[in-house]
Amino acid sequence: MIDFPPVIRNLIEALKELPAIGPRSAERIILYLLEENKGTKQRLMASLRELETKITLCSRCGFYSEEPLCQICQDPSRDLLYFCVVIHPVDVLKIERTGAFRGVYHVLGKKISPLEGHTPEDLPIAHLIQRIDREKPREVILAFGTDAEAEATALFVSQILKKRAIKVSSLAMGLPAGSGLEYADSVTLSYALSGRREL
Amino acid sequence: MIDFPPVIRNLIEALKELPAIGPRSAERIILYLLEENKGTKQRLMASLRELETKITLCSRCGFYSEEPLCQICQDPSRDLLYFCVVIHPVDVLKIERTGAFRGVYHVLGKKISPLEGHTPEDLPIAHLIQRIDREKPREVILAFGTDAEAEATALFVSQILKKRAIKVSSLAMGLPAGSGLEYADSVTLSYALSGRREL
Repeated sequence: MIDFPPVIRNLIEALKELPAIGPRSAERIILYLLEENKGTKQRLMASLRELETKITLCSRCGFYSEEPLCQICQDPSRDLLYFCVVIHPVDVLKIERTGAFRGVYHVLGKKISPLEGHTPEDLPIAHLIQRIDREKPREVILAFGTDAEAEATALFVSQILKKRAIKVSSLAMGLPAGSGLEYADSVTLSYALSGRREL
Repeated sequence: MIDFPPVIRNLIEALKELPAIGPRSAERIILYLLEENKGTKQRLMASLRELETKITLCSRCGFYSEEPLCQICQDPSRDLLYFCVVIHPVDVLKIERTGAFRGVYHVLGKKISPLEGHTPEDLPIAHLIQRIDREKPREVILAFGTDAEAEATALFVSQILKKRAIKVSSLAMGLPAGSGLEYADSVTLSYALSGRREL
């Protein structure tokens, strides 16, 4: 049976490797690219090339950057006494978008995950400890999420950091904003209870 | 507020120009591309470049091709007495995938569309008429769909072709396969009635 020419099939296959793109979306995208003459193809190629060549990880905190130090580490208004440790570079943006944190970050890069073969010994924690010993923050906030692997990672990291007589905290658990009790599971609700605030 | 570095934002913007990709999918794709080292980026770049440079339209029928003549027009087993006229190149594949047509195609390229400013005079019909006069098919099947613009195009094209004493047909309208009467609208049902077949 006749199909698209090989060049088009290759692009469909490459697109299907991406998340959120199935065979039908890949075909729609191809048809768009074949018909368009607004430069989308050129912009895509140029940005992919730049992504490949220009994006690196900040040598201090591990966030995405185009320079040795990222925008945040270059910002003199940041409060160096507060470290927020996250697992993935993109988690930095999640915290940034709250507007509620003016300290600096440290990206761990992975969490303890027996399924993926990441033991506590694999955790790249040496760089974090060096930074803490050198920069002497007042508080280290572990912003790891609440799945079992993230909690195991937080426990492990906090035990190491506490040997250094440093304040270690983690994100509060409780009800999500704008939600009623009827949607909360009992584990979340018990955390919300034990973490209750005086009004 | 801190955001992704400019290079990443550029790629997100380029991805958002594509159909079926919104801001969240674009971000998921970026995160995948930043982490992956399986060569997806390189394959995407290479296929985009090839799409740009290698894909052309068949000089005879107008289907996508990497050579002056497409796979179908190069196939000696095709029945040259039957022309199937479609509006878009991708419609060729739709018909091919049925496996029910062994003739050759002609891609019109556009339909009459007052909203987009395409009048009957804009229809690139001269090339189709030249082909018909030269190749003398027995039947021309108009496979245009059933929206108002497609039907107007079919009417216009059929009037021109009938002056040449040629058999002109269009796709049957009726019930879709695997569907009950309860889902059919009354227009479709009236076409299914008037086009009924003796068993």
